[in-house]
Amino acid sequence: MGLIRSWVESANAPDCPFPLNNLPCGVFSVGAGAPRCGMAIGDQIVDVAGLEAAGLLALPGRPLLDAAVWNPVMASGPAVWASVRAQVTALLAEGAGRKAAPFLVPLASATLQMPFRVAEYTDFYAGRNHAFNVGTMFRGPENALPPNWLHIPIGYNGRASSVVVSGTDVRRPWGQVKSAEHDMPAFQPSRRFDIELEMGAVVGTPSRAGYPVTVAEADDMIFGYVLLNDWSARDIQAWEYQPLGPFQSKATATTISPWIVMKAALEPFRIPTPAREKPLLPYLHEPRPMLYDIALEVGLTPDGGQETVISRTSYSEMYYSAAQQLAHHTTSGCAMNTGDLLGSGTISGTEKGARGSLLELSWGGKEPFAVDGGARSFIEDNDTLALRGHAQGDGYRIGFGDCSGTVLPALADPYERA
Amino acid sequence: MGLIRSWVESANAPDCPFPLNNLPCGVFSVGAGAPRCGMAIGDQIVDVAGLEAAGLLALPGRPLLDAAVWNPVMASGPAVWASVRAQVTALLAEGAGRKAAPFLVPLASATLQMPFRVAEYTDFYAGRNHAFNVGTMFRGPENALPPNWLHIPIGYNGRASSVVVSGTDVRRPWGQVKSAEHDMPAFQPSRRFDIELEMGAVVGTPSRAGYPVTVAEADDMIFGYVLLNDWSARDIQAWEYQPLGPFQSKATATTISPWIVMKAALEPFRIPTPAREKPLLPYLHEPRPMLYDIALEVGLTPDGGQETVISRTSYSEMYYSAAQQLAHHTTSGCAMNTGDLLGSGTISGTEKGARGSLLELSWGGKEPFAVDGGARSFIEDNDTLALRGHAQGDGYRIGFGDCSGTVLPALADPYERA
Repeated sequence: MGLIRSWVESANAPDCPFPLNNLPCGVFSVGAGAPRCGMAIGDQIVDVAGLEAAGLLALPGRPLLDAAVWNPVMASGPAVWASVRAQVTALLAEGAGRKAAPFLVPLASATLQMPFRVAEYTDFYAGRNHAFNVGTMFRGPENALPPNWLHIPIGYNGRASSVVVSGTDVRRPWGQVKSAEHDMPAFQPSRRFDIELEMGAVVGTPSRAGYPVTVAEADDMIFGYVLLNDWSARDIQAWEYQPLGPFQSKATATTISPWIVMKAALEPFRIPTPAREKPLLPYLHEPRPMLYDIALEVGLTPDGGQETVISRTSYSEMYYSAAQQLAHHTTSGCAMNTGDLLGSGTISGTEKGARGSLLELSWGGKEPFAVDGGARSFIEDNDTLALRGHAQGDGYRIGFGDCSGTVLPALADPYERA
Repeated sequence: MGLIRSWVESANAPDCPFPLNNLPCGVFSVGAGAPRCGMAIGDQIVDVAGLEAAGLLALPGRPLLDAAVWNPVMASGPAVWASVRAQVTALLAEGAGRKAAPFLVPLASATLQMPFRVAEYTDFYAGRNHAFNVGTMFRGPENALPPNWLHIPIGYNGRASSVVVSGTDVRRPWGQVKSAEHDMPAFQPSRRFDIELEMGAVVGTPSRAGYPVTVAEADDMIFGYVLLNDWSARDIQAWEYQPLGPFQSKATATTISPWIVMKAALEPFRIPTPAREKPLLPYLHEPRPMLYDIALEVGLTPDGGQETVISRTSYSEMYYSAAQQLAHHTTSGCAMNTGDLLGSGTISGTEKGARGSLLELSWGGKEPFAVDGGARSFIEDNDTLALRGHAQGDGYRIGFGDCSGTVLPALADPYERA
């Protein structure tokens, strides 16, 4: 399948992230206006809440697009998801009338908001190269990969209240850290603040408490995907994470891209997970390819400087798909809900320039890497980190928009009230 | 302070869990009626939503009690919490008129529902004896207490969708387990299903993203306390928990008592945390006592048998208070929200009969203990586990109601759809 041409001309450029094939779901506001649901098309946003209110978009039941979040649509299931896409595609396709023209808003004039209300957030650890790299640094190469890693899509519950949309500044956190030279820990600003390059899967339809879902059912439940940056304070993490896992080191912020790319837009880019090194238990078998071929990169821009692309990799590096992760998440009978967000785990390739965290890129700070105007081991104050990704089709691409954040200096005294 | 007498005579009995001093917050329904906010008084529930609608209870702003959950009141802050208590106390006090009489519903006729909507759920690990016991079993006595344990109130994020109210049946989960004799893991029903005796702190007022709170501020944010049973599949936990912590082993269910005891009812029972074995960092210092003296017990009733009390202990055993845990939870700038639930961690005393989990009571299954009609190492199908707790005042007690659940047999095939 090639480009689906639109009368919105900017959407037809081969390097446009938002052709008619994409139609990602976001929430935007203009000036002091209220947030509204929209879909990106070329350099415009089509105000789908406006289309629905004007009777140009007919969805079952009560209005679904007037909530300023996509959750009501997400909860309505695959038939409604397909219907939204089909109707908006028909309105914007080349040769269609221009009834939707009054509902176009220039992207450049809009502020993008959280596209959905996060119910709960789970972060996984499904990148083989990342797990090996980090395991080597924390535990040595012989113990790098935990014994359960090839059998379980390892995950931990994160903090939904930490999830913010691209463009939100991130304040360097304080936390409890302990250096090998001291007997006692200290409470201080993190000195090893980092990113994790991830994809996020967004759950649309819920599962029933007490009933695990199959991988195929899990795939059906997924509404779409975002880019995700799991900001991580490595010094806090190293001291706190044993025995019950990361906690405050991962709770400062988790940034997602402003656009949820619906699963339908990614269908042409499905690929299988890599060959299994050990056989999986049957409940984790994929009946068809459930990973996606999505090119990813990370840019670092120092305060007042130019961006350096510090990593280029691909979502195809993952050992487990989001569908496998979601199926595993329900094995205990755990109910999954509309708006649950599943981070893939850090995505690192095998090459040095394909690593998805500064921890790996600088090998724990031992090998600083070059950026514009200097070198980095970890994030410095006022650095901006941006994740980007796209699936490359034949003459078009499916993009997510930047997933970006600037790291502000730590508070001088975190307990002082203004 | 002694008993505050009520014209609801059953509330004046010295062993009644719900005297006028208590007034815990719950949600009840009668028959097919809609759930309503109520407070327990003696053997009755006073329908506070009805009192508000009838103008007998005046709260600021829009109606706060018509939501079938206590979250709107919880979010309104300490002045509103105090106002609710003062007004309901005045209506029910001995010598007051009986205007509230039409709003009394017999407890025995009501079904108790979830008292609040859980935003996010965090579980801690703050019991010194429990941490030592479990650490000894998992890692040996010399490595029992992790090096960070005396410095950090260790916690991990749990799954809010798992939280259910007392009386909800709990289905024995399936999960991935691995025995030492086999090279490969298996997917099977848990054979080591367990309880964890805990208290839960319920967050009322939120904190601001990016700004840690002090221990004193954290204490002010807490609306009240519940009993909490963190059901745990020990065989699943042992295989999955390294390196990122418990996940599916803790996601089947978390049962809470139907009544939230407001902090005000527990004021007379404040006690300090135990002496520190190592000095705490200043951000964790308690400006005044923030733990509570609450007697706790666990009963196990086999199918068709009699209850055996298998453990008696006290909340005073905790090394960290909920206020310390909540303050630590915000150090990274993590925003805490109305309805966040913080599990204390398993509460175990030093004596064998004071341990808060079957794992400890049976020492990993090596020392089965006696119950009516047999012995137990872990929970058997159709066993009912009930947590109970109360603070003992001078001539009255503050109770929580049972926190109870029956464990149903595992599904024969968890992927078969009816």
